[in-house]
Parts: sequence; C-alpha cells; structure tokens
Amino acid sequence: MDQVHLIMRTFKIKTNTRAEFVDVTDTVRRAAAEAGVVDGMCFVYVPHTTAGITINEGADPAVQADIISHLEKLVPHHAAWRHTEGNADAHVKATLVGSSVAIPIEAGQLALGTWQAVYFCEFDGPRSRSLHVKVIKG
Amino acid sequence: MDQVHLIMRTFKIKTNTRAEFVDVTDTVRRAAAEAGVVDGMCFVYVPHTTAGITINEGADPAVQADIISHLEKLVPHHAAWRHTEGNADAHVKATLVGSSVAIPIEAGQLALGTWQAVYFCEFDGPRSRSLHVKVIKG
Amino acid sequence: MDQVHLIMRTFKIKTNTRAEFVDVTDTVRRAAAEAGVVDGMCFVYVPHTTAGITINEGADPAVQADIISHLEKLVPHHAAWRHTEGNADAHVKATLVGSSVAIPIEAGQLALGTWQAVYFCEFDGPRSRSLHVKVIKG
Repeated sequence: MDQVHLIMRTFKIKTNTRAEFVDVTDTVRRAAAEAGVVDGMCFVYVPHTTAGITINEGADPAVQADIISHLEKLVPHHAAWRHTEGNADAHVKATLVGSSVAIPIEAGQLALGTWQAVYFCEFDGPRSRSLHVKVIKG
Repeated sequence: MDQVHLIMRTFKIKTNTRAEFVDVTDTVRRAAAEAGVVDGMCFVYVPHTTAGITINEGADPAVQADIISHLEKLVPHHAAWRHTEGNADAHVKATLVGSSVAIPIEAGQLALGTWQAVYFCEFDGPRSRSLHVKVIKG
Repeated sequence: MDQVHLIMRTFKIKTNTRAEFVDVTDTVRRAAAEAGVVDGMCFVYVPHTTAGITINEGADPAVQADIISHLEKLVPHHAAWRHTEGNADAHVKATLVGSSVAIPIEAGQLALGTWQAVYFCEFDGPRSRSLHVKVIKG
C-alpha cells in the first residue's frame, strides 16, 4: 500500500419541507464503492449553514420524526432572534447537529452499524442542496 | 514519507447503567501507539444509534455527571415520543453528541489537550457495545 | 499521486469575553494554502474542554449572537452544577458543539459553502487558547 487517493463526489439533494431528514446512505455507499476503496475513511460534508448531517437509526421513521420535533422544541422557529431572515433556529440546529460525519471503510464497506443510516438534515427548506462525499483510499 | 497506512482496531465496551460515560482514552492511545504512528490522524467511531462519543474533561468526574444529567434535562427519557421502544431520547442524544471524534497525532502522541479525555457515551444501557479506532499514518 | 503529507500548524487565539465566537476561517485557509494542498482534507481541532469549533454563517454577525445566546438559554451558566469551578455549562456546550471540524480541500481551496465560516467557540473566556489545523495532502 504505497498509494493514497482522495476522491470527492458532489451530489444534489432536493428537499421538500422546512425540516426534513433525507436518507443519503445509499448515495454515500455508492460513492465509496465507485472509488474502489477497500480500506479507507469516508467524509460526508454539508456546505450549508442551515442544514446538517447525522448518523442515526434507519429502521423506524419515527426516530427521525422525534429528532426533528425535539430539535424544534429545543430551538423554536419563532422566538426573539436577532437574525432577521426567519431561519435563525436553522443556524442553531446546524451547529448542534454538525456539518460533517466521518465513517471508516473496511473490507470495501462503510463500517456503519446494523441500524445506522446517514441523514442529510434540512432545517430551512424546501431548497436545492449539495452534499460532498470525500473518500481517502489506502 | 511516501507511504500511508490506514489501520483499524475494534474494541468491545460493556456498559453498566442506562446513561454513562466510559473513559476510552487509554484504549484510543494504545491503538494509535500500536499502529506505530508518528504523524497522523485518529478517528474514533461508534457504530450505534443510541450512543455517542465526545472529548471532555478527564480530571473531575463531576463534569461527566453534569453533562449526562443536563442532557437528560434537555432530552427527557420519558416524554411524548413517537418511537415506541423507550429509547427515543437516546437517539436524540446520539445526534446531539455525534458518532465520531477526530484527533491529530503528532510526534507519536494523540494531540489531546491537558484536560481532555475521550468518552464513549452510553445513552441506552446497559449493553455490549463496539468502538472502532482508525488511524491514518503518514 | 503516490505521496501523502500530513501537515499540522498550531495557532494561538486570544479571547476577550466569557462566550464569544472567533472567526478563524482565514487562519484555516492560510494553513491549507501554505501546505500547498490541491486535493485533501483539513481537520481543525480544539485541545480544550470548555471551547468548541463550528462552521456557520459568516455574513450576519447576528447569527453568532443568536447561537451563543441560545446555547446560554439551553445550558445556563448559573444552575445546580456538581462541578464547582463555575464553568460546568462551558463543558456541556463544548460537547454539544464538538471539538473538531473536517473540511474537504478541492482544487487548492477549502470546499466551504458560500456562507460558511469557521468559528472557534469560546465558552469560558477570556483565555489564551490553541487551535490545531491538520491537513492531509494527496
């Protein structure tokens, strides 16, 4: 192993409501597979300030609904915000959730746990968004 | 430096209560040392959806207790959750805390600050858990 | 591309108030540029337990003010904390915000979105702080 490749793919995501999780697991998986990575690291990056990315349960959609509605309870859309564009809450949520995730790649597969899925987290939709997937290949 | 190695080790963690921080600093340190890394990056990854990983103070155990009890205040175990497995709060906490940390390795050492320790964050224990430590070696 | 470099730079940051965001975007950009990276990954790491790092809007300073004051609302400075150094809230905020960010480098540039800036998040200032910027170069 005397060669490393860094490979980046950018994907377009269309969101349909103000706050919504989009399952991008297959997209990320495909990007890693197409890079021909056996052993590596995968970084998923959101180039937006009112959206985030998280890894959480993919089986029961109620989990996503609970996360979205609890974040709304903690950081309400309508409150005494200084930022006057009507999306201050989305900025706070983006910082709480984070703008990137890092996933190991082992034996050609993302080392996601059994129940894990990767979610693009829209907090100020509907919008057209981008998502970068960068793979470091050993 | 014309060679890069990516090395992964997986560790088992046994948690004993519902919400608990397990100090994995020595485990991570040892994994990095065994990889013989002088200059690199270390990624610690949790393949679970009701647990997380964080870096925080290792000196006073009261800090861990404060973080756990404040997260419980922000995201109560018992509330009107849609997800009916009794651990919806743990999923929300996992997203707030995050599923990975990234630590630089310099001069053969994790570049942790003086007071920093790495904690596996159990939010739905007791359980048997896994932890991946992946090292990129320059 | 048969050579990988890992390059780390450490910067000093002086904060002036208890809770404050310091824009470190230019610092991170310069560290990446000086490393001569065309294609790579950039990791920004905070070696402290009462500070964090986040990526959020750089245009309207009201966004930073909203994030800081909302974090204070969620995690008050004065409350029934076990940790008796008067900064327990700062530790909780550090875990919520996180201790590192990861940014792809493409065509010699950080792949930050149009509105994204990188902020060092002081939660227990004023203090002298450090910031590590590590670049993996393809």
